[in-house]
Amino acid sequence: MRKIAESTVRRLSLYLRFLEEFAEQGAGTASSEALASRSGGGTTSAQVRKDLSFFGSFGKRGLGYPVPALIASLREILGLNRRYRVIVIGAGKIGSALVQYRGFKERGFDLAALYDNDPKKVGREWTGLTVRDVAMLEKDLRQTPADIAAVVTPADAAQGVTDRLVKSGVAAILNFAPVQLTVPDGVTVKTVNLVLELEALSYAIGQGS
Amino acid sequence: MRKIAESTVRRLSLYLRFLEEFAEQGAGTASSEALASRSGGGTTSAQVRKDLSFFGSFGKRGLGYPVPALIASLREILGLNRRYRVIVIGAGKIGSALVQYRGFKERGFDLAALYDNDPKKVGREWTGLTVRDVAMLEKDLRQTPADIAAVVTPADAAQGVTDRLVKSGVAAILNFAPVQLTVPDGVTVKTVNLVLELEALSYAIGQGS
Repeated sequence: MRKIAESTVRRLSLYLRFLEEFAEQGAGTASSEALASRSGGGTTSAQVRKDLSFFGSFGKRGLGYPVPALIASLREILGLNRRYRVIVIGAGKIGSALVQYRGFKERGFDLAALYDNDPKKVGREWTGLTVRDVAMLEKDLRQTPADIAAVVTPADAAQGVTDRLVKSGVAAILNFAPVQLTVPDGVTVKTVNLVLELEALSYAIGQGS
Repeated sequence: MRKIAESTVRRLSLYLRFLEEFAEQGAGTASSEALASRSGGGTTSAQVRKDLSFFGSFGKRGLGYPVPALIASLREILGLNRRYRVIVIGAGKIGSALVQYRGFKERGFDLAALYDNDPKKVGREWTGLTVRDVAMLEKDLRQTPADIAAVVTPADAAQGVTDRLVKSGVAAILNFAPVQLTVPDGVTVKTVNLVLELEALSYAIGQGS
């Protein structure tokens, strides 16, 4: 399958969410209009049909998409028919919120280990996990590889930790540190940065838009 | 000043962070090369110069940018020379992590009120704030407007809460619910969705890229 744009992947995630809601409500089919309307943000039914056409021919004109089949296909496309072992580096408040976030487990993401370099935190229970010394990272990953690592360290530690993760074979990183991480080809990074989002809002407020 | 692209605003936020680090280390000037190298992610010095040229002529060729002056200009551009009153709708784990997030206050974002509709949560202390009944939202906002609202509700409540916020004059929304919110012109929404980021990673893992 050819590579699709990141914005399309995001819309597919949203469509999946809505289809699951429709399924809960007992709907057997869903129209592209219903998916577009639920998506909000100016998404048109033509956009929905285009997005879904990447993956072959779902549904029949006038009948809508078969909800269970489309859910199964989207889960397959998005790689959700398996579980992922996720480790978290940084046992601060954001790390803790991540570990507790119910939505992760529901989507197949298992929080497997939590690391910190603070001797006061290492060895403590943290919402069901024992905080491990980040010095053990390489050894642990040799024994049990991780699919995804969340980097929740201070900014100045993030690149160093990322380099260690990449050397240990982690190919997918969720970055919460306020830096752009440099990784080699074949490693994917997604950054979530609350301060950047807030500054984009304060900029918009300043523009009066 | 003309409107600049969202991706540029994000890089300006990052440059500001790096310049503040440089200032802490006592640097009086910074080169576009140093800013580019610290930014990572393939940012070039030409990109840095282009981004900063939007805002007039900083620095002199060969001498680098004057760090304190550039910090002041970027703070001005990003709307950080004032404080913002931020309210949070949804006193769950993510809302709680937000309220506690040190980085907010440091950047001028004051968490001023936290709302929920769960009678078990309303009236409880939540990391220094008392959870208020979301039924009070309109009345509270009439008395004390908010600059920014963080929507941390379940998906099916997010649009309704957003409509109420917009009607009450909130023009900047940070959305943590897994939906695309529809807002009128003049209102800015930024969405942070951990599950979408994780699904973008699981998609990338599936593509082996």
